[in-house]
Amino acid sequence: MTKSKISQEGLTTGPFPNSKKIYESGQIHNIKVAHRSIELSDTKTSEGEIFQNPPVTVYDTSGPYTDPDYAVNLEKGLPKIREQWIKERDDIQELEQLSSEYGQMRLADKKLDHLRFDHVSTMPLKAKDGRCVTQYYYACQGIITPEMEYVAIRENQQIQQIQESYREHRGQCYGAQIPEKEVTPEFVRDEIAAGRAFLPANINHPETEPMIIGRNFLVKINANIGNSPTTSSIEEEVEKAVWAVRWGADTIMDLSTGDNIHETREWIVRNSPVPVGTVPLYQALEKVNGDVEKLSWEIYRDTLIEQAEQGVDYFTIHAGLLWKHIPSTIKRVTGIVSRGGSIMAKWMLYHHKENFLYTHFDEICDILAAYDVGVSLGDGLRPGSIADANDRAQFGELEALGELTQKARDKYVQVIIEGPGHVPMQGIKENMDLQLEHCKEAPFYTLGPLTTDIAPGYDHITSAIGGAMIAWHGTAMLCYVTPKEHLGLPDKHDVKTGVITYKLAAHAADVAKGFPGAQFRDFAMSKARFEFRWKDQFSLALDPETAMQYHDKTLPDEGYKSS
Amino acid sequence: MTKSKISQEGLTTGPFPNSKKIYESGQIHNIKVAHRSIELSDTKTSEGEIFQNPPVTVYDTSGPYTDPDYAVNLEKGLPKIREQWIKERDDIQELEQLSSEYGQMRLADKKLDHLRFDHVSTMPLKAKDGRCVTQYYYACQGIITPEMEYVAIRENQQIQQIQESYREHRGQCYGAQIPEKEVTPEFVRDEIAAGRAFLPANINHPETEPMIIGRNFLVKINANIGNSPTTSSIEEEVEKAVWAVRWGADTIMDLSTGDNIHETREWIVRNSPVPVGTVPLYQALEKVNGDVEKLSWEIYRDTLIEQAEQGVDYFTIHAGLLWKHIPSTIKRVTGIVSRGGSIMAKWMLYHHKENFLYTHFDEICDILAAYDVGVSLGDGLRPGSIADANDRAQFGELEALGELTQKARDKYVQVIIEGPGHVPMQGIKENMDLQLEHCKEAPFYTLGPLTTDIAPGYDHITSAIGGAMIAWHGTAMLCYVTPKEHLGLPDKHDVKTGVITYKLAAHAADVAKGFPGAQFRDFAMSKARFEFRWKDQFSLALDPETAMQYHDKTLPDEGYKSS
Repeated sequence: MTKSKISQEGLTTGPFPNSKKIYESGQIHNIKVAHRSIELSDTKTSEGEIFQNPPVTVYDTSGPYTDPDYAVNLEKGLPKIREQWIKERDDIQELEQLSSEYGQMRLADKKLDHLRFDHVSTMPLKAKDGRCVTQYYYACQGIITPEMEYVAIRENQQIQQIQESYREHRGQCYGAQIPEKEVTPEFVRDEIAAGRAFLPANINHPETEPMIIGRNFLVKINANIGNSPTTSSIEEEVEKAVWAVRWGADTIMDLSTGDNIHETREWIVRNSPVPVGTVPLYQALEKVNGDVEKLSWEIYRDTLIEQAEQGVDYFTIHAGLLWKHIPSTIKRVTGIVSRGGSIMAKWMLYHHKENFLYTHFDEICDILAAYDVGVSLGDGLRPGSIADANDRAQFGELEALGELTQKARDKYVQVIIEGPGHVPMQGIKENMDLQLEHCKEAPFYTLGPLTTDIAPGYDHITSAIGGAMIAWHGTAMLCYVTPKEHLGLPDKHDVKTGVITYKLAAHAADVAKGFPGAQFRDFAMSKARFEFRWKDQFSLALDPETAMQYHDKTLPDEGYKSS
Repeated sequence: MTKSKISQEGLTTGPFPNSKKIYESGQIHNIKVAHRSIELSDTKTSEGEIFQNPPVTVYDTSGPYTDPDYAVNLEKGLPKIREQWIKERDDIQELEQLSSEYGQMRLADKKLDHLRFDHVSTMPLKAKDGRCVTQYYYACQGIITPEMEYVAIRENQQIQQIQESYREHRGQCYGAQIPEKEVTPEFVRDEIAAGRAFLPANINHPETEPMIIGRNFLVKINANIGNSPTTSSIEEEVEKAVWAVRWGADTIMDLSTGDNIHETREWIVRNSPVPVGTVPLYQALEKVNGDVEKLSWEIYRDTLIEQAEQGVDYFTIHAGLLWKHIPSTIKRVTGIVSRGGSIMAKWMLYHHKENFLYTHFDEICDILAAYDVGVSLGDGLRPGSIADANDRAQFGELEALGELTQKARDKYVQVIIEGPGHVPMQGIKENMDLQLEHCKEAPFYTLGPLTTDIAPGYDHITSAIGGAMIAWHGTAMLCYVTPKEHLGLPDKHDVKTGVITYKLAAHAADVAKGFPGAQFRDFAMSKARFEFRWKDQFSLALDPETAMQYHDKTLPDEGYKSS
């Protein structure tokens, strides 16, 4: 037995208090959908009567790590739950070697052996020539894949079992078409086929538990992780990924810019139960030692293939920032703040050429379609301050993203659209309305937005306000912001604070939209609160640990202690 | 010299980084309005050019404590800046003794000497017989008081000097009539006369720096403090009050329920530069040892007079919870959660009588008018969970509050209306619309509202989302919520977190409404951020300490590090 490459000591695993992992079977496919079931204690009335409270099933992003029957082994990676489903479609080939030059080079480098994930010996999958393997393509063919049935069951959180047992406010959903009672596999298929939903499912990431991003589904959140030139090891990044999904991250983006990006990503993907996104431009830039002028389509293309074959589920691509948009950024207070946007603008100005991500967009889509990598169209011109919100630069780029959406759809590539950033409250609805219009209802994925700029240290909150509102209006996924935003790199505690803050914002939006069953957890919490079932309040809380720690046992048991 | 009764050691005073206290003179009256001026460093361009950045004047709730020329002395209390203004109106009398029995009893009790604020030797003021001394009355007479001119200058934050120097988003203000360029003293008078604004100014609290609460002014926030049977001393409560106003509390409510409530309040009022509110019912209940049945109009009345003569600026009075409303609470998930509401409901059920606060409301108003104490009509039936939001009980009480608003106005008593609590996002606008309608535009004062119930430990955030939204729609003041809400009693750190969180929510609303100059601080921050003037970013931050502490000096100086 060889020495282990990675320590599991820092990992937080195991079930949440009074919760157990349950698995619900599919009706169409042989699938087992994981939920978390929170067990509640009985209600005891002052007359001595006892009433049982049904367990509450909640959406569970944490993967096998919270299943006590699962033996965590980072070196082996997570179970490949999608492996069979992918193979049975009979439209893929197993490659004989990695297709990217960079991937081959790293594999051949013996000095990297001690960093390498061992089970990488399996060769990547790719669509057979002439076949398309995206969930979007399948949906357009009328096929309900196991992934689609999985997300239908997952979104329902078993609410069908208790739907009649509590009062629910009517939602207001700004033209979204939220299902009235429950999500069916057919509904999932139709939403994907309409381009209104994205099911991230790279055929090389069979470990992922299927999830869906779309405005007629539960609002999702993303947590950014990734090393930097100054900090952290592979171990820490894997630890951060497991930590983020434990608290509720629906996807993670690996934004590494430090050493051994390729190997770090392999470890993350193999151990991530949620889809993984990246910004391939960041790694491409590392390959030319940060020298923007030296970036080229060839290097970028090789990076796309390298990452697609590792199993990255979606790529942020800043293809909508065009030559014609740059002049409109000159009068801005904060110029171009998107990292991808500023890299591409610099490249364009140096070479006096149009954005190569735009000129090569068809080729990009061909690559992505062969692995079912989704494209997240980056907003390189997102405002970096509320002063710059909703300006010509931002909305000019949004129109270009709409054009690219159509191109991607023509190739059956799944698309989502990135949005701001910094927007005062009165400008939020305009962002959503224009995005729906220009991008033909492709899912919107925003970073907050921050609703004021005067509270550094609290930007998880300034942005949760904007995030909850824009999600209510239709944004499908929110990228989290941590308390360190604008100030420093987040540590583990910041990651948790960011995730919980965004989870509550997303949930507030689910409730406001009237998603079936979204209000049940609130109802169960309020009932437990009114009945002073403290243990149940902790179990139902998004963050049981903090609630327990803050609980002051000297508080008298009086109803009026709650607001 | 006697031994000092109170230590000042725990007090945090002194100016904020790179800030100085400035005083702006009135045009009509001989007044000096305090602002905080934040000095900024120069902009240095890459070409070596240097541009000065004008200082930024911001609203300052901190009182003399942040003036380095002021020698803090808690035993002496704050300077009585309003003393002359009050006397010059020649409509008040100095009483020969305290009017309340309880006040006299406490004063006569030698055992309390060591707790007593010494300068209480000055006797209270009261309106001369037949005279009315409320700011509302003056406004209705067409008078512009020094208090009114003070708040006009204060609200402007000297924005007139820089108004043309930056771009500003157009606000959206839902029917509010925000002044376009600046607030004039005439505008303040007219808003008060219309009942749309409340200027808290008990004639026995001459230490208060005038401020205004109304939807056509900056959104204000309140911080609750107060001891409890299990915790804290007079010292700690004064310390908490000074701490809360340092970070931005526009008013404080003393909700003490522990020992020596009378003496604690005296110390707080004498040392508070912001208006102080209370819930007199809490103290009345202490006087009958918590025995609700024993509460009576006589005890309550004596408490009102006792507190009015100490200088409390507004009272929360739960007079709108009527006998007829109680049945509609039975089917609620969380019943009656307002402490005042549950006390009165219990009293009514025990005595089978209508709420004595309702039946004696005219007498209450007569007492309040004689000192210019404002009434904050309590929402005893506010929802304690999103499940109970916007129900018949809540809106039934709101109608009664509208009726009481008119009664108070008939006596020239200033009125604000308390609101929820817990409301899902889609229900927020309805709350605001009905409040404006039923209560004829009297200022709305809400507690959050929380937009979801599933995040105990993070309820400052779940409620800041609702708070920012309802303030945008027209709520004039937000009562803060701390991270300990529903779990325990807030400590100093929680108070600060609550205040900063609500300050940013209120500011986000000011920006969204388009209040003149509200966006300037954001603009200055964004410019400093883009130019990597870190020191200026800290100075401009709502919480410079936390921003500085989070700042990671290893971060490279790159534009794209901001979102």
